[in-house]
Amino acid sequence: MNHYRPASRRLSPDRCFAADPAQRAVARALYAVVRELPLLCPHGHVQPALLAAPEARFGSPAELFIIPDHYVTRMLYSQGVPLEELGVPARDDRPVESDHRRIWQRFAEHFYLFRATPTGLWLADELTNLFGVEERLSAESAGRIYDHLEAQLARPEFAPQALLKRFNIALLATTDAAADDLAHHQRLHADGLNHIRPTFRPDALIALSRPDWPAQIAALGRAAGVEVASYADFVRALEQRRAFFQQMGALATDHAALTPYTHRLSDGEVATLFARALRGEVDASAEARFTGHMLIEFARMSAEDGLVMQLHVGSLRNHNHAVFTRFGPDNGADIPISTEWTRNLQPLLHAYGDDPRFRLILFTLDESSYSRELAPLAGHYPALRLGPPWWFFDSVNGMRRYFDLVVETAGIYNLAGFNDDTRAFASIPSRHDLWRRVSCDWLAGLVVQGLLAEDEAHELAYELAYGLAQRAYRWETW
Amino acid sequence: MNHYRPASRRLSPDRCFAADPAQRAVARALYAVVRELPLLCPHGHVQPALLAAPEARFGSPAELFIIPDHYVTRMLYSQGVPLEELGVPARDDRPVESDHRRIWQRFAEHFYLFRATPTGLWLADELTNLFGVEERLSAESAGRIYDHLEAQLARPEFAPQALLKRFNIALLATTDAAADDLAHHQRLHADGLNHIRPTFRPDALIALSRPDWPAQIAALGRAAGVEVASYADFVRALEQRRAFFQQMGALATDHAALTPYTHRLSDGEVATLFARALRGEVDASAEARFTGHMLIEFARMSAEDGLVMQLHVGSLRNHNHAVFTRFGPDNGADIPISTEWTRNLQPLLHAYGDDPRFRLILFTLDESSYSRELAPLAGHYPALRLGPPWWFFDSVNGMRRYFDLVVETAGIYNLAGFNDDTRAFASIPSRHDLWRRVSCDWLAGLVVQGLLAEDEAHELAYELAYGLAQRAYRWETW
Amino acid sequence: MNHYRPASRRLSPDRCFAADPAQRAVARALYAVVRELPLLCPHGHVQPALLAAPEARFGSPAELFIIPDHYVTRMLYSQGVPLEELGVPARDDRPVESDHRRIWQRFAEHFYLFRATPTGLWLADELTNLFGVEERLSAESAGRIYDHLEAQLARPEFAPQALLKRFNIALLATTDAAADDLAHHQRLHADGLNHIRPTFRPDALIALSRPDWPAQIAALGRAAGVEVASYADFVRALEQRRAFFQQMGALATDHAALTPYTHRLSDGEVATLFARALRGEVDASAEARFTGHMLIEFARMSAEDGLVMQLHVGSLRNHNHAVFTRFGPDNGADIPISTEWTRNLQPLLHAYGDDPRFRLILFTLDESSYSRELAPLAGHYPALRLGPPWWFFDSVNGMRRYFDLVVETAGIYNLAGFNDDTRAFASIPSRHDLWRRVSCDWLAGLVVQGLLAEDEAHELAYELAYGLAQRAYRWETW
Repeated sequence: MNHYRPASRRLSPDRCFAADPAQRAVARALYAVVRELPLLCPHGHVQPALLAAPEARFGSPAELFIIPDHYVTRMLYSQGVPLEELGVPARDDRPVESDHRRIWQRFAEHFYLFRATPTGLWLADELTNLFGVEERLSAESAGRIYDHLEAQLARPEFAPQALLKRFNIALLATTDAAADDLAHHQRLHADGLNHIRPTFRPDALIALSRPDWPAQIAALGRAAGVEVASYADFVRALEQRRAFFQQMGALATDHAALTPYTHRLSDGEVATLFARALRGEVDASAEARFTGHMLIEFARMSAEDGLVMQLHVGSLRNHNHAVFTRFGPDNGADIPISTEWTRNLQPLLHAYGDDPRFRLILFTLDESSYSRELAPLAGHYPALRLGPPWWFFDSVNGMRRYFDLVVETAGIYNLAGFNDDTRAFASIPSRHDLWRRVSCDWLAGLVVQGLLAEDEAHELAYELAYGLAQRAYRWETW
Repeated sequence: MNHYRPASRRLSPDRCFAADPAQRAVARALYAVVRELPLLCPHGHVQPALLAAPEARFGSPAELFIIPDHYVTRMLYSQGVPLEELGVPARDDRPVESDHRRIWQRFAEHFYLFRATPTGLWLADELTNLFGVEERLSAESAGRIYDHLEAQLARPEFAPQALLKRFNIALLATTDAAADDLAHHQRLHADGLNHIRPTFRPDALIALSRPDWPAQIAALGRAAGVEVASYADFVRALEQRRAFFQQMGALATDHAALTPYTHRLSDGEVATLFARALRGEVDASAEARFTGHMLIEFARMSAEDGLVMQLHVGSLRNHNHAVFTRFGPDNGADIPISTEWTRNLQPLLHAYGDDPRFRLILFTLDESSYSRELAPLAGHYPALRLGPPWWFFDSVNGMRRYFDLVVETAGIYNLAGFNDDTRAFASIPSRHDLWRRVSCDWLAGLVVQGLLAEDEAHELAYELAYGLAQRAYRWETW
Repeated sequence: MNHYRPASRRLSPDRCFAADPAQRAVARALYAVVRELPLLCPHGHVQPALLAAPEARFGSPAELFIIPDHYVTRMLYSQGVPLEELGVPARDDRPVESDHRRIWQRFAEHFYLFRATPTGLWLADELTNLFGVEERLSAESAGRIYDHLEAQLARPEFAPQALLKRFNIALLATTDAAADDLAHHQRLHADGLNHIRPTFRPDALIALSRPDWPAQIAALGRAAGVEVASYADFVRALEQRRAFFQQMGALATDHAALTPYTHRLSDGEVATLFARALRGEVDASAEARFTGHMLIEFARMSAEDGLVMQLHVGSLRNHNHAVFTRFGPDNGADIPISTEWTRNLQPLLHAYGDDPRFRLILFTLDESSYSRELAPLAGHYPALRLGPPWWFFDSVNGMRRYFDLVVETAGIYNLAGFNDDTRAFASIPSRHDLWRRVSCDWLAGLVVQGLLAEDEAHELAYELAYGLAQRAYRWETW
């Protein structure tokens, strides 16, 4: 029934490795050690529902690879392909392309756009090594490959739960709203999938000016069993939810902010500000001050309850208003801005940067801050670790620049290892494989330049693939 | 009559290629394909008069290589050689060196300053491959080489029009004031040189505070046949001139700004502001607001008439007041500043960034914005393309950093290919050759690391050398 | 008596060299030429007392390698080792670890933290090549190595004065407070050690708001024999001190500032501001304006007396208040901020940037300014030179980025060569060796890519190792 016949598409077993034979030999040796290690995924956006229900499926190839992946759709959009033609659902219910085979064909015709991009590498790896596609995706091959993928996806071994085992994932943290009931995680844990863990994300609760903020506060109150009528109630409800997440196995919290501005408000100031917000009296300035205060407050909670705090900074969301109006958020129109860490983070670090109970992992979209600010900060404050290259920089060159710019100052042991930060579950092994390849090649470069002994490189390859993430997120199996 | 005898100066045929034998072999193969392709020069500053008159000549070696080239004179100046001694004409008519042979000798004595610089590479290539100089330029060889160059320059095959053919230039865009009568282009086209095209540059018309602004407006009015007594007249005159440029084959407009700040003023605001400017009532703030408004207005015109919009941002001109006072602008004292694109360009992109008629090509002098802002913007907005590394970054490492920082996020197809941006006509082949070498070597690096198939690399080598520029500037021969 | 027996620790003779055999061969050839050249150390922080007294000794291995070295202590602190346990003296006289052998053991247990860092490279080189340690430092070997080091340090050939000769140092500039009596230098010169020179550092005299400023002014007045009751007195006292330093062989001054802001105050403004400061009436804004003014005033003095002016910018000192309170400054908690040079330095450069008597050497902690601002500035203004990569960037990759980002625009001859900027006297040869290796490897890379002739590379290797520093600091032996 499967008409698919393999053709010419081959991935180099040495991809990401330097051409130099000496360096390549060392890289291969290091990679051989870490290639099969279990995957630690301490930060990501996989929907727990996908894994909780044994009957869940990925849907069509277009649903798996194209429609929900803004890495893919933004690139096609940048070259003139309307999002409607890619089946991206419109907010206003205007019709969009619903023929998934046509969406796939359109994607295949533009697949050349992903040459020399990480998305291109992940897709090639996923098609080849996960789905067994052996010819190159093109307008001509699109139909055959679609058939092949459709057939594969119908097979039980391509159900999400089946892949969860096959991927050898030791830890998978999802990212969940603070008011979430974590029902999917309850089911997962009941089914023995204890390694799927929630992460506490309270961003919606501090976005005072968003229209849905009152609804978010109400939901928090319901979930926590606390009537949130004051700032003190708010803090109590947050602490209650954190405790619940922790019971459910959460290792960490996650926070996004436009800037890393932190500043503690006095008790009176924050009480007044919050009371005004409850009455609908807020402006952008009040929201920024509240965010700056709450980051310190979340640091305090982390110091007390031990949840690792993650901070992702610097994305100006929904830059394209027309796309946002028609299609909503997360459509490839989030654009970074420059980020100042040294002064902005100082109040938070004064309060908790030296606290041995506290752990803060930082993620940036401004690479100029790697060597100037982040590495010196992480090379001093005991609480700090540097997250891996994020988003646009989760790429071969992004990783190389990160290693080159960060390690000499921060050392390797102040890094937090890798996380894939993806909602595309099926791409997880490809993303970790890229990190492992690039980190082994980078270590090999140090070895052949006489800057690292080969036994040290072996230890560090393990650390970068597994150990650092394990310790940064204080991961222990139950 | 030509006493010149070749000596030891040899350029490596593999210059710019990695030492690694595998990578070098691929680079050579790619370069062999693109090396002889015609040159597309969609942005530059060659004087059309030089090409329009068959009798035009380059002048002496000092006039060709030194006196007008601020890349050369600034480096000698930085090491203590007065500009007067290099024959740079002074504004105050104080005498400067007029013995071109002495100027050449001075230059040759300091030629070592250009080691490891792009100017050094261009000059070596030009001397060797265009003029047949085979010994190295030094204090000792200066006189012999001067004689040789003088003899060559006297020959008809070194006339600018002769070189235009020899260079295999398929398109050469000049940059012309909005009020220019384009008489040289008329003559060029009458002589069948249809591939020399004007570019519409209206910068002088929006510099409200410059002393010559009233004169510029008057010249615009005369050229357009419009009496410019209001903002509406101003817009009408600009549109008239754009139409004329377009009739004369213009493909693009060019705009320089200190920052990419854009903000649309209301009709009333801009009418009032312009009326005040006509009465001489302007300040720096009004000028900045007007520039921010006009960039959006020029985008509107481009969307309507189809001229590609180029935007060069970030140079603080005439940083050295003493040099400016004595020698005027363009003497190597323009210094970059940091540039914010994400927020500044948002109003313009909201208005026209999704418009399929509109094309905007961006050029930066702040490399920290490559990966942080420009690549994400170009990887989303259909109207955007990224111009090649500009000015100081038109160099081996500048190109490598550009590829490394930009392509993974923006993809290759959101680049605008190469342009030489030079007023030094005779250096054009050397500049394109450097780009072609570096881009082939970069592609070869991807191939040997297993990140790109060799047939893809061949296609991309062609795109980087020719195809991208052709499409970015919508170039079609008449 | 020395029980130490060599074991397995070996440093590659080719460390820092590319793996590519062609590049490595050229790098070796270049390095062979410069490896044994005398060391020029025109900027550093070695205590002159250490060298002036023949009886001075380094103390214990912990005193030599750990306790005073904030590069070492900050990394251990970042991984949770309290500074008290490293024997760092506390301001409040709380007890800290005093058992040096235990401090050493703690350091050895954490020595893996320095993998892939410059501190790790320097330490390995120093232990191996200076002290003859041949096994790797680890928890297991710590005790044996401590014994070995202790024995070595007791030998007369490891006295500081003995090492000064062995190191082949041709020039060693210390950094000295403006009011210093330079008694140690007097003794050094009397003993024939004319190559130990003071450097004039007046920073404490312009920090108007620091509690000890009145005491600093009083000390200046005493040293200069001037009662400082006005700004005019202050300038006279500074000029007097500079003349004294110059008599004592000073080549340069050194200035640190948070930003390179410069702005000349009027005579009246500065007189009033200074008078207020003497009355204790200052705020942060007044101090910043005074600093901006004084930088221009120091430039004037340098133009007049010929002392080379050094400017180190961009470190936010004492970021960690808790560490500062307990342990004081210089404990690894100085964090860089982004730095704007183009506009900030313009007033100073307008005044003296073209002055052939003036020399200004710039040091940055913001690498994004290398290619954007510093290289264009240095490639134009005759007075400017770029200092080597500083502090966090005095590293293999830091040097490589510096060469890649700076040289194409500024040229090599606008660089100031290397300086070690260290207070760790025994590490000086290791630091210079790293620079020489990396610069030779970088030049070799240019050679094998056909971008530089091999004879040119030899000249430039010499320049980078010796010639540039010699000329930048106008060094001539007495």
